[in-house]
Order: sequence, then structure tokens, then C-alpha cells
Amino acid sequence: MMDTPVLVDGIPTASVGANDRGFMYGDGLFETIAVHDGRPCLWGFHLGRLRKGVDRLCLPCPSEDLLFRECTEIIGEQRRCVVKLVLTRGAGGRGYGPPERPSPTRVFYRYGWPDHPLDWQSAGVRVEVCHTRLADQPLLAGLKHLNRLEQVLARSEWKDPGRAEGLMCDLRGRVIGGTMSNLFVLSDSATVLATPLLDRCGIRGTVRDLILKNAHRFGISAVEKDLYLSDLAEAEGLFLTNALIGVWPVRQLGEQGYDVGRLPHGFLNWIRAAVQETDPEIRNPCAPC
Amino acid sequence: MMDTPVLVDGIPTASVGANDRGFMYGDGLFETIAVHDGRPCLWGFHLGRLRKGVDRLCLPCPSEDLLFRECTEIIGEQRRCVVKLVLTRGAGGRGYGPPERPSPTRVFYRYGWPDHPLDWQSAGVRVEVCHTRLADQPLLAGLKHLNRLEQVLARSEWKDPGRAEGLMCDLRGRVIGGTMSNLFVLSDSATVLATPLLDRCGIRGTVRDLILKNAHRFGISAVEKDLYLSDLAEAEGLFLTNALIGVWPVRQLGEQGYDVGRLPHGFLNWIRAAVQETDPEIRNPCAPC
Repeated sequence: MMDTPVLVDGIPTASVGANDRGFMYGDGLFETIAVHDGRPCLWGFHLGRLRKGVDRLCLPCPSEDLLFRECTEIIGEQRRCVVKLVLTRGAGGRGYGPPERPSPTRVFYRYGWPDHPLDWQSAGVRVEVCHTRLADQPLLAGLKHLNRLEQVLARSEWKDPGRAEGLMCDLRGRVIGGTMSNLFVLSDSATVLATPLLDRCGIRGTVRDLILKNAHRFGISAVEKDLYLSDLAEAEGLFLTNALIGVWPVRQLGEQGYDVGRLPHGFLNWIRAAVQETDPEIRNPCAPC
Repeated sequence: MMDTPVLVDGIPTASVGANDRGFMYGDGLFETIAVHDGRPCLWGFHLGRLRKGVDRLCLPCPSEDLLFRECTEIIGEQRRCVVKLVLTRGAGGRGYGPPERPSPTRVFYRYGWPDHPLDWQSAGVRVEVCHTRLADQPLLAGLKHLNRLEQVLARSEWKDPGRAEGLMCDLRGRVIGGTMSNLFVLSDSATVLATPLLDRCGIRGTVRDLILKNAHRFGISAVEKDLYLSDLAEAEGLFLTNALIGVWPVRQLGEQGYDVGRLPHGFLNWIRAAVQETDPEIRNPCAPC
């Protein structure tokens, strides 16, 4: 069944302890890292989010050196692949109470590059709104933790390979993002990019952070705010982001079509290049300033 | 690290696949089963809840015969112990989308009987209200699924061994139950037992079900309703239930004391006997009718 290389606490193996709290309770975090030219991309962004997660869950964080070494080891000779890191609270007994001195489990997986149609980058994607809603949980909002049944239920809603993604709303009707991506909404003659506030639910994506930090350099104001489906209906354009897809323009949401030509392609192309860098803030391949 | 016997898909082992969706996403369910006299207790109640869970998550359910056989095998020669069953969607790839034909993983664990102080049954327990709130997620409410970070955070709030449990409220202030137990609230001269509605969050406990089905036989009306901390402050008494503890009267909630003598002890003793039966509805040791 296991056709992907796995390192558990630095050891090549295909299994984890049945008493691991990741398996028992989803008591842990993960990161999904793109690898280009044999190097892990957006490394600092992934580490930054992981650190916020371990702080919130009170997990001891392995050193960055150790994580980078094991990440490099799982990449091996591959030039382009996906590395997934799972970090859990480690072995535990039966109850919810965490062990006093947890010994976290580190698992690195290597997967092949996903085979999404290439024209989704240029021509854009078709998406629909999911029936599954996200619950408000401010204590866990933003984190990429292992409790992902909501995303599993949402992703189970469609099998049509022509549909790229599903948008998820919270129970009050605010749009939060895709099942595996963050959403950006363009308005004001392409000068404002809004993305949902993620203080109650949702995952703070690495590319989302990259955009929020750098949009101003392209004359675009990027803001976090509550967004509703009516805001999407009135938008000039939409796009989705994550560390693997980079940017997917949305050409259709349900019955509504969008002209992907109205998106700020200079900026989007900068993002697409930046997400292939280990540290895009040191080396900005096509930044204008 | 693993000092508890484990059966994974019928095979004695200490590990599960690192690509198991239980580990990846908490994509599965569990049951915690008391064993008395070498027999699993409340078997039908546990199976009933598990079936509701597999229906909701669209998992294939292993046959009851197979589950009972493996449960009996893990019990072995033990007379009194705890069996935990974890049922996941099995091996999967990287994405949230479930495999088309999942092959669920069954894991049975055997643990020693918990060593709670014996006088908690008679003299009652001290509990506090947790700061961690439960999120509303109607699609998963009631199920004993593997996404349990909220309970982990709540149970992390105290280390005082004299505190037995923490009560959890939802974000709107409704009391939902304990981190590992259900709550009952006595009123109307011990003729009404109310327990929180669990249509938005919380876990439908096996003993909770047993009480809702049988209270009328003791002249008590048992109802599910929204309850607030103010209802608890005005109550004649409170108690907590789960399959292992049976019934714990509450003698103190925060600053407020309760007279455990006002609880309907005939009924509570019936429950304590019933939770030691494999099928309490066939053999009701001390039911009055």
C-alpha cells in the first residue's frame, strides 16, 4: 500500500506507533511543501506557521536544523516533488490529557508532483460552493492541524475531475476559502485584493502570507476581511492559492463566469516565481522595487 | 513505549501505516469499552454509535461478528480492563479526497482499568468549567470521531488530580458536557433529568443513551435541551456519566456545592449495575418493572 518514501523520526519506515496521539486524536500539525530544483520552497513560511502551531498546542518544536536535514534527506535526488511533514505530540496513553514531557513524532513523506491540468494556471479553474460548512474555533483557527474531517467531508462532495476546488463557508455564511487553498477577491479596478479573515476558522496558507506581505510592492492593497458570497458575485476576479498550485485564477464559480484577463498578471506571475524559491524574500526574481 | 496489547486488522502489532488517514486527518471513529467479568459492556450501544458514525463518514463498517471476535481476542484472559477500538478510513494518498474503495483499519487496544479514587462514586467529584469552548459542527455532532484537539486543549487546562473533570461550553455559552463525560442536571424535586442537546457538538455517550431510554421506568422524565451555567446553578444536583466511570455525582462545581444526597440513588445504582452488562436491555439486574 505504501508507495511513497517515509522517514519517521529520521528512520526510513512505513509505520507509526498505534499509540501515537496523531492517530488517536489528530493531536498534531502538518505542512505540505513544494520542492523545485531539489530545494524545499517557502521554507521560512512553512517553519513560521509550524512554530505558531506548536506554540498554540504546547508541543516542543524540533530544531530547524533537524527538520531541514530530514527534509533534504527525504527529497534525495528528486528535483520536483512534494514533501509532507507531520508533527504530532508523540506516544501517549488512553486519555485526552497530554503526557507531561511529550516526545513529538516527526514524519516526512515524499510524493510525486500533482498532475493538475496545466491550463488551469492560465485559463483558470471551475469551482463550486461546498455544502459542508466550517465550524468556528478561534483557538485553532489558522493552524494546519491534523483535525481535518471537515475538509474530508467537503472534498467528498464531488468526483468530477473538471471541478478544481470547492469553496467553504462558515456556519454564518462567511466565505473562508477552498478545501485546500486560500481565496483572493479582486476589486476597485484591480487595486484591492481581499482575502477572508481567518480568526475563527480556516488555514493561513504560506502563499496567502506571501501575498499579504508583498502586494503593496505591485501597487495593490491586500486586506483581510469578512467576505460573503455576494462579495464574490460582485468581484472583478477571484483566484486560489496554495504552496503546490501557486495561483489558480477562477474562471467559473457555479453559474457565474469571471474574465481571468482582469487579474493583475504581473503580480500573479511574480507569485508563481516566488513560490518556487526557498526564501522568496531574499531572492525576488521579478519584483519591481 | 507501547505497553498495551494492540491488534491491527486482527494482527498483534504496535504500529499502523504512516499513510493511514486516521493519522493524516483524524479520518475515523473510536469507542472506549468497559470490560467486566471478561465481557465487553454496553456492546449494542457502542455498535449503534459506531454505525451512525460510519454512515455519516461513508466508511464501510466491518461486520459485528468480526468486531466482537477481535474484541474478545484482545480481552484475552482479563476480567476487568478497558478496550479501545479505533476505526479509520485506512490507507490513502496525500489529498483530502477519500479513496473510492476505502479499506478501513481496525485497531483494538487493551488498557488497565483507570485508577480513579473509589469515593468519587459515592462522595462525588469536584469539577470546574473549562476555558476551551466547543465549536458548532452539526455534521459531526454526537459522533465519537478522531478529531479531538478541542478535548486535548480542554484537558490540558488542569493538572490537579483532585479535580475530576472539566465542563465544556459551546461558543454561545451552552453547556455541552465534560471533556470525557456527559452531564445530567436534576430538577423538579428529582423528577426531571435534563442533559444537553448534542445536535451541534458533543459526543452522544453510551450511558447517556441508556439513561434517556430507561429513566421513565424510575418515574423520572429525561429530556435533551439547551442548558446554560445558570441552569446548573439552580439545579438540585448534577452527575456525569461515561462507559468507564458509570456515574459520578458532582459535589462541587467551581465555588458551588451540591448535596449529592438529593440525587435519585435508586436509579443511579441501577445505571451502575447496567453499565457492567453486555446487553443491559436484556438483563436489567435491578429494574423495578
